[in-house]
Amino acid sequence: MRFAAFRQGGRPGIAAAVQGGAFHGFLAGESGHPGALDALIAQGPGALAAAGRALLAGPEIALDAVELLPPLPSPPKIVCVGLNYADHSAESGFQVPSYPTIFARFASSLVGHCAPIIRPRISEQLDYEGEVVAVIGRGGRHIAKADALDHVIAYAIFNDASVRDYQMRAPQWTVGKNFDGTGAFGPFLVTADELPPGARGLRISTRLNGQVVQDASTDDLIFDVATLVSTLSEAITWEPGDVIVTGTPAGVGLARKPPLWMKPGDVCEVEVEGIGVLRNPIIDEAGERRAAA
Amino acid sequence: MRFAAFRQGGRPGIAAAVQGGAFHGFLAGESGHPGALDALIAQGPGALAAAGRALLAGPEIALDAVELLPPLPSPPKIVCVGLNYADHSAESGFQVPSYPTIFARFASSLVGHCAPIIRPRISEQLDYEGEVVAVIGRGGRHIAKADALDHVIAYAIFNDASVRDYQMRAPQWTVGKNFDGTGAFGPFLVTADELPPGARGLRISTRLNGQVVQDASTDDLIFDVATLVSTLSEAITWEPGDVIVTGTPAGVGLARKPPLWMKPGDVCEVEVEGIGVLRNPIIDEAGERRAAA
Repeated sequence: MRFAAFRQGGRPGIAAAVQGGAFHGFLAGESGHPGALDALIAQGPGALAAAGRALLAGPEIALDAVELLPPLPSPPKIVCVGLNYADHSAESGFQVPSYPTIFARFASSLVGHCAPIIRPRISEQLDYEGEVVAVIGRGGRHIAKADALDHVIAYAIFNDASVRDYQMRAPQWTVGKNFDGTGAFGPFLVTADELPPGARGLRISTRLNGQVVQDASTDDLIFDVATLVSTLSEAITWEPGDVIVTGTPAGVGLARKPPLWMKPGDVCEVEVEGIGVLRNPIIDEAGERRAAA
Repeated sequence: MRFAAFRQGGRPGIAAAVQGGAFHGFLAGESGHPGALDALIAQGPGALAAAGRALLAGPEIALDAVELLPPLPSPPKIVCVGLNYADHSAESGFQVPSYPTIFARFASSLVGHCAPIIRPRISEQLDYEGEVVAVIGRGGRHIAKADALDHVIAYAIFNDASVRDYQMRAPQWTVGKNFDGTGAFGPFLVTADELPPGARGLRISTRLNGQVVQDASTDDLIFDVATLVSTLSEAITWEPGDVIVTGTPAGVGLARKPPLWMKPGDVCEVEVEGIGVLRNPIIDEAGERRAAA
């Protein structure tokens, strides 16, 4: 099943589709509306599946005629994994890591499918990073790797757009990874049963204005989804609705000579086999551009 | 005014006190209960002040007879600032930064005053970091430094307890800063009007089993509260209830020879002049201790 969060006429709604089928759903306040996706995920896979069946009885929702939202607007955690493809780690000047490198995004940086990714006033160095998202359904701590995928309820796509000069201005990358309007998340959630275990073996590619700039397989992840869920649970309790942004392969603009930055008028697409295409235009932040402080 | 969040008999409550006075308050469900602190902060300083007056009319709450909770259990953002005292930056082997170094905590790591800080099974390297917290009252983006303190509604204390071997296992510190039960936050919020502007000029000290291990002044912050609020708003929209953990001074256990780690049975206190004392015992995580994976 696929689940999309959207807004129409100022009202939020959710919609569901079976693979290859049209989306159907309800607006908040309509009698068939089963609640928001985060609440449904917290209730468990049975509740999510029941909501999906109820949504399919609703009117058809043309996704290109509504505003798609991040499927989860305020996850308890957005855990982003850096350096998780060997070729990207190398192009970034790092050794292949022996432990997952994680940083956080704040929900304030999220935008949905087709919403603009925003180039900030203070930087030209806006880079793309296509990634697969894993969504935690069942929380837990000290999760064995063999059980880890039972805790993942769905997958999605992310463009972890990065403001490189700010990412590198301090030893921690957090500022450059959290500019408003840079975390594209969508287009919808695809439940884990529709994909290979751990979303392995899927082609992931990023296109900037139609040109392929990243092209890899999720088999190339250094720490696969099961390993990430299990290893990080040594430290951190997973909660339902937590989002893991699993890392990007080689080909980022920063590593090119000359560097390739996203600029207003560009369109960036991240496609993951079996999930879909996340598409975002690039626009400039309102206000006068200025040099960094 | 001071605001504490607590639990008594399984029910959450909030309480208020004037400086030097006793706390008075209500449990959720009682008619005088004005709502949770995060909701009151989102409504603005007027709502918070009105709630404080209403709480003072309630029964006295003996803080040592209730379970104190983190004043804000799930802030939209917990932005921690690293390397923000020159002497700590030096002892950590970093140059004095020219831009704030930030990383995130997830709310899953928070504990309140007097709750145990938990030494995880997989590490001995549990370190203390006493810090001042600034809480955002009014959100915004591109906030001028001259206006920045108008966006800060309250202050509190934090012990940013860090699992050093995990902090250093990857280029980003996030895992070592997010173990369950390591982010002590409390004992309560003190509204900004009770403190010097930007909480400047306050003595901050950390004691481990009564021995002073950190002792500094908030005047020594490299990036003071106004600068942090303003500078980071170049990138990120502040939201009401966001928490800024402003950084720790020199004296951490990692920098000592030999290193000084917190261990079960220890008590760590962070005192900030004009705010109070945040006290936490250290306990071992349940389960068998084991070597890191």
